[in-house]
Amino acid sequence: MPRNVSKRRLRAGIVGGGQGSFIGAVHHVAAELDGQAEVIAGAMSTDPQRARASAEAWYLKRSYDSFQEMAEAEAKLEDGIDFVNVVCDKPMTFNLEQAQELVSLVEHKNLIFALTHNYTGYPAVRHARALVRQGAIGEIRKVLVEYIQDWLMEPEEKSGNKQASWRTDPGRSGIAGCVGDIGTHGENLLEFISGLKIKSLCADLTTFVEGRPLDDDANMLLRLENGGKGILTCSQIAAGEENGLSIRIYGSKAGLEWHQQEPNTLLFKPHGQPQQILRTGFGYMSDDAKAATRTPAGHPEGFYEAFANIYKMAIADIRRVESGQKPEGGYPTVYDGLRGMQFIYKAVESSQKGAVWVDMD
Amino acid sequence: MPRNVSKRRLRAGIVGGGQGSFIGAVHHVAAELDGQAEVIAGAMSTDPQRARASAEAWYLKRSYDSFQEMAEAEAKLEDGIDFVNVVCDKPMTFNLEQAQELVSLVEHKNLIFALTHNYTGYPAVRHARALVRQGAIGEIRKVLVEYIQDWLMEPEEKSGNKQASWRTDPGRSGIAGCVGDIGTHGENLLEFISGLKIKSLCADLTTFVEGRPLDDDANMLLRLENGGKGILTCSQIAAGEENGLSIRIYGSKAGLEWHQQEPNTLLFKPHGQPQQILRTGFGYMSDDAKAATRTPAGHPEGFYEAFANIYKMAIADIRRVESGQKPEGGYPTVYDGLRGMQFIYKAVESSQKGAVWVDMD
Amino acid sequence: MPRNVSKRRLRAGIVGGGQGSFIGAVHHVAAELDGQAEVIAGAMSTDPQRARASAEAWYLKRSYDSFQEMAEAEAKLEDGIDFVNVVCDKPMTFNLEQAQELVSLVEHKNLIFALTHNYTGYPAVRHARALVRQGAIGEIRKVLVEYIQDWLMEPEEKSGNKQASWRTDPGRSGIAGCVGDIGTHGENLLEFISGLKIKSLCADLTTFVEGRPLDDDANMLLRLENGGKGILTCSQIAAGEENGLSIRIYGSKAGLEWHQQEPNTLLFKPHGQPQQILRTGFGYMSDDAKAATRTPAGHPEGFYEAFANIYKMAIADIRRVESGQKPEGGYPTVYDGLRGMQFIYKAVESSQKGAVWVDMD
Amino acid sequence: MPRNVSKRRLRAGIVGGGQGSFIGAVHHVAAELDGQAEVIAGAMSTDPQRARASAEAWYLKRSYDSFQEMAEAEAKLEDGIDFVNVVCDKPMTFNLEQAQELVSLVEHKNLIFALTHNYTGYPAVRHARALVRQGAIGEIRKVLVEYIQDWLMEPEEKSGNKQASWRTDPGRSGIAGCVGDIGTHGENLLEFISGLKIKSLCADLTTFVEGRPLDDDANMLLRLENGGKGILTCSQIAAGEENGLSIRIYGSKAGLEWHQQEPNTLLFKPHGQPQQILRTGFGYMSDDAKAATRTPAGHPEGFYEAFANIYKMAIADIRRVESGQKPEGGYPTVYDGLRGMQFIYKAVESSQKGAVWVDMD
Repeated sequence: MPRNVSKRRLRAGIVGGGQGSFIGAVHHVAAELDGQAEVIAGAMSTDPQRARASAEAWYLKRSYDSFQEMAEAEAKLEDGIDFVNVVCDKPMTFNLEQAQELVSLVEHKNLIFALTHNYTGYPAVRHARALVRQGAIGEIRKVLVEYIQDWLMEPEEKSGNKQASWRTDPGRSGIAGCVGDIGTHGENLLEFISGLKIKSLCADLTTFVEGRPLDDDANMLLRLENGGKGILTCSQIAAGEENGLSIRIYGSKAGLEWHQQEPNTLLFKPHGQPQQILRTGFGYMSDDAKAATRTPAGHPEGFYEAFANIYKMAIADIRRVESGQKPEGGYPTVYDGLRGMQFIYKAVESSQKGAVWVDMD
Repeated sequence: MPRNVSKRRLRAGIVGGGQGSFIGAVHHVAAELDGQAEVIAGAMSTDPQRARASAEAWYLKRSYDSFQEMAEAEAKLEDGIDFVNVVCDKPMTFNLEQAQELVSLVEHKNLIFALTHNYTGYPAVRHARALVRQGAIGEIRKVLVEYIQDWLMEPEEKSGNKQASWRTDPGRSGIAGCVGDIGTHGENLLEFISGLKIKSLCADLTTFVEGRPLDDDANMLLRLENGGKGILTCSQIAAGEENGLSIRIYGSKAGLEWHQQEPNTLLFKPHGQPQQILRTGFGYMSDDAKAATRTPAGHPEGFYEAFANIYKMAIADIRRVESGQKPEGGYPTVYDGLRGMQFIYKAVESSQKGAVWVDMD
Repeated sequence: MPRNVSKRRLRAGIVGGGQGSFIGAVHHVAAELDGQAEVIAGAMSTDPQRARASAEAWYLKRSYDSFQEMAEAEAKLEDGIDFVNVVCDKPMTFNLEQAQELVSLVEHKNLIFALTHNYTGYPAVRHARALVRQGAIGEIRKVLVEYIQDWLMEPEEKSGNKQASWRTDPGRSGIAGCVGDIGTHGENLLEFISGLKIKSLCADLTTFVEGRPLDDDANMLLRLENGGKGILTCSQIAAGEENGLSIRIYGSKAGLEWHQQEPNTLLFKPHGQPQQILRTGFGYMSDDAKAATRTPAGHPEGFYEAFANIYKMAIADIRRVESGQKPEGGYPTVYDGLRGMQFIYKAVESSQKGAVWVDMD
Repeated sequence: MPRNVSKRRLRAGIVGGGQGSFIGAVHHVAAELDGQAEVIAGAMSTDPQRARASAEAWYLKRSYDSFQEMAEAEAKLEDGIDFVNVVCDKPMTFNLEQAQELVSLVEHKNLIFALTHNYTGYPAVRHARALVRQGAIGEIRKVLVEYIQDWLMEPEEKSGNKQASWRTDPGRSGIAGCVGDIGTHGENLLEFISGLKIKSLCADLTTFVEGRPLDDDANMLLRLENGGKGILTCSQIAAGEENGLSIRIYGSKAGLEWHQQEPNTLLFKPHGQPQQILRTGFGYMSDDAKAATRTPAGHPEGFYEAFANIYKMAIADIRRVESGQKPEGGYPTVYDGLRGMQFIYKAVESSQKGAVWVDMD
């Protein structure tokens, strides 16, 4: 039923994210962080008992055994959840066909659909994009993207680690492991900041941990639509690395460098001039970066806050749509999700053919 | 009226923090971040109109014109606020007498009283304390504490900056400026991690910006109760610095180093051995650090999360007390607030006498 | 004529390195740095006047117009130069055939021949190799090598920059630009530290600056002889980068990271444990690192000192040979030079065929 | 006898620096590094046998048993040493009276006298001074100087460590330990870069290692002649620190930060603008910095090169004087040595009186 959301927090329902989940808890905190929404209902696990316990631990009003049940029941309630619009984690779907289907569905239903390629929510990342758009680095020539971790360098999936278990199982994760789980974040970040599409790629996927059916490491050469060149490397066996997402972009005038583990800093590197340490919270940052920043310079904002920025923008759009305004976007959408699935398929195809060049489109 | 809080989020009321406030918004987010409390009522400004607008922007259920009014009204409501216990910002009071009075009050009423010396909420800070307690650095010999900023290096208080205005006004801030605002954080951090009291100090307070009635910079020599020596410097005129709180502690076996602007890292420096980069989120961290961490290593947690840790511990104690258990503490209390006021008074006394040594007790 | 060198500094002659040269001056300083040799003669330029002026500026005893002349004349002198043995810069020769020839020559004449792949002279690099040899990082899985600069991002060769001029001229530099000039250092460093050979590569060479006949950027996928994978990227158009040579190696137990611009630090990254900051000058470093270190920890040693280490080892071998002992090596030799030329040829071949895989052997 | 030095390397004699010495070897390398001088004679130890062995290891032409003997003998030789001018290490003398005497002597004899406050030889330090002189940071308000090490945190002097032995012995080191050995470097660096004199100080010296007769740690409050304030801390018991000399200067416009362990970088911190990473070797550096730099950006220069810069400037002055020109200076002189001795005496006086304020003049 249509509901007026203008004078209250939005009411959200959560699917998945039961106890033991990492990203479920992040979604919960991020959705509520700015006081614009509250999670009140959930179908938090396929195991009903676990679903109920999880819902209770979070003080949800209502727990359901399935998302279908939640959707049906909440729709009938006066104080039911508002989110028929959707904030979805990535990779968006199990396979490419589903991704294409989902695009149709979103287009047809005219939904707000936000995808948590959460790293685009960092203010420094948004400022990097603004600098590229302003022409501050000139024509892009070279891009180096890394996403390196080590948490799967041992066969964790055999020791009962739930996170490891589904990520290394083709039946649940689809055709790619590391490339799907984190490589797609790299691809998304590159295209988000540079404003350029990857034209073709040459990918060398490897499984280093014996008996694992999916890749746990990949190295790729990239060619961009403007003639720029690049490298993307992702790994879950890079010993000693935590969550090492980083990007460096080199243009005909200047370079940029950003590291997720020190997210409030962006290096700007003009040719022949001193490098500048750009820091979130300063007046010299772009409006887009400022809108994604909550505190003055020197007060570190992190993973949750970036994640919450995706929610904040999506919720603002939901409010706009509910009050008859046009959505303004700014967050990753179903098209980013589709692009990510295409990237996965092309990377796997390239590697299976012997690490040869394949076109993205 | 007594309320059962075991199966729901706590209901909080907020005093101050109206639009334009920095720390008010932080309290709001921090209180709610873990889904353990919700702010539902407020007396957010002494200007009633601003109070109402602020409350509306945050979707509070009820707005009041004063905290007295809020207290009275909420106490009578079935679904009124639960926080008769208090989370208070620092410096705790306007002057030392009030601080002493407040200590009596808290002791007499047997309240949960948490003070947001928020920097003690960082997991790496808590791990530093754990290492000191374990004896990992040996007997403490030398401590270097800094809290340096630059936001008051120009006469901002004359350009309508509200934050600057009250912080440089003796009528609202008391006898100290920079020392009260940030020096106390340094003192608290030092005593928190080291487990040692400052025995005496020699403080040189300066006002660099002309016409400002309170100090905007201070350098201090410290002597600790165990014979250790130290330096504490705080400044709001240190050009180019953001929110530069840091601490280095040197013992007879090893050293420690922590910087608030990269809060997830703690350096451990054993004599003659490689320095170790300790990072939050790892299994090797102490239980106290783990309890203050929400995400795996490499997912940066920042200012909000540390602030929320103070709330989380205080709320846990409120729940304990409500269910008849004993509180467990872990957060700064009214005694830390009193200690901070004493520190302010001693630093000002030392400086006024010509930067001479004065005993803390 | 045979000379007793045991009680005096070796006497060296220099070929090239006239005024305006960068690396010539480095050779001079490096050769003499440890007081084991002195440069007394030179054929410093093909322009005789420039040769003489250069020799005078350095207070050489004798200046020649050509290296042939120098060789002949010095051989006849009582106090002539000792270096019939050779320290040579890289790339070793103009083309692959010459490299093979030189190998034969060195083998046949039984000469000491040192190649200044100078980056292997850094103590931290030598310690990295020692750690790999000890098994401290386990079986190598992944290697990331970078050598990125920006000094050719504009067409410097058209503005009279001598350094730029010969490096972008196929008539003087051979078939590769950036790959030959700095890519080979990356290749050499990788094989030096890892002890592994590159088995095959897929290289994408690019010329970004219009009108330049040689590559100024390259991205490569690598496969190592043990099944490990890698990336090597080199660039002279990476805006804002100085002399950014770095290497990261990930094994089945731990990772290593080293950056040439902070050469006294080596990061050791054991899985699940704190990263260690290994620093030159400490007792815990390997003997090989210690032998390459002149000062206690905290006294930065840099480019010259690393360069001088190659000379130091070569001179020690010359002294050994002169006194009838066996040479001990430790420095890059003619075989490293040949390997570098092969690498250049394979990278160019791969790229010319469309960035396809080619085997190194 | 007067000698023409214009067409040859200067000939130097060395006093001290025998085998096992650290700084003696540094002087040797530094003196010769630029090919402008060669050490040919020495009185390297008070133990004649050790003197001879040391001289032989360095291939000196002549070894003497005492500096008097060397002076007399060399003066008579055609190819004797040129250095009647002097490059001297710091602290310059054993006590203050000798320092004053030496000043008279140098003034009277009109000698070139260079003191190796070597840290002023770093190009980034010289650039910092240039920026201050240009007014780039405005009026100086606050200075933070540190020189912290840990190599004396154990009683090394009792385990036969020669370096430790003389540095902790009042009979050889004079009235101060840590303050004399490294504190003076801090004082010199501060006055060199800032161009300001320390007006008064309040110093708290401590001996942490039992049984040691001299200080091994000191904390000081400083007041500068222009009203600026400061802190100087030096320590040889700061666990895990190597050779941690650093300086931060804050003016009314901008701040500066430099760390000896990463000497090629200078941070420039303008208020409200991005921090700039200034790097040696770039065209934007000042002429004074450029004159002290030998390699392009990204080729690290370190301790030896900075040390050699003192020699280079002194040798250039010797050449000037020999050829009838006026000396140009640029290096620390006998007056810096005197100033250092005064600093030591005032710091000790302040501390002995209970860490009270004393005027420098």
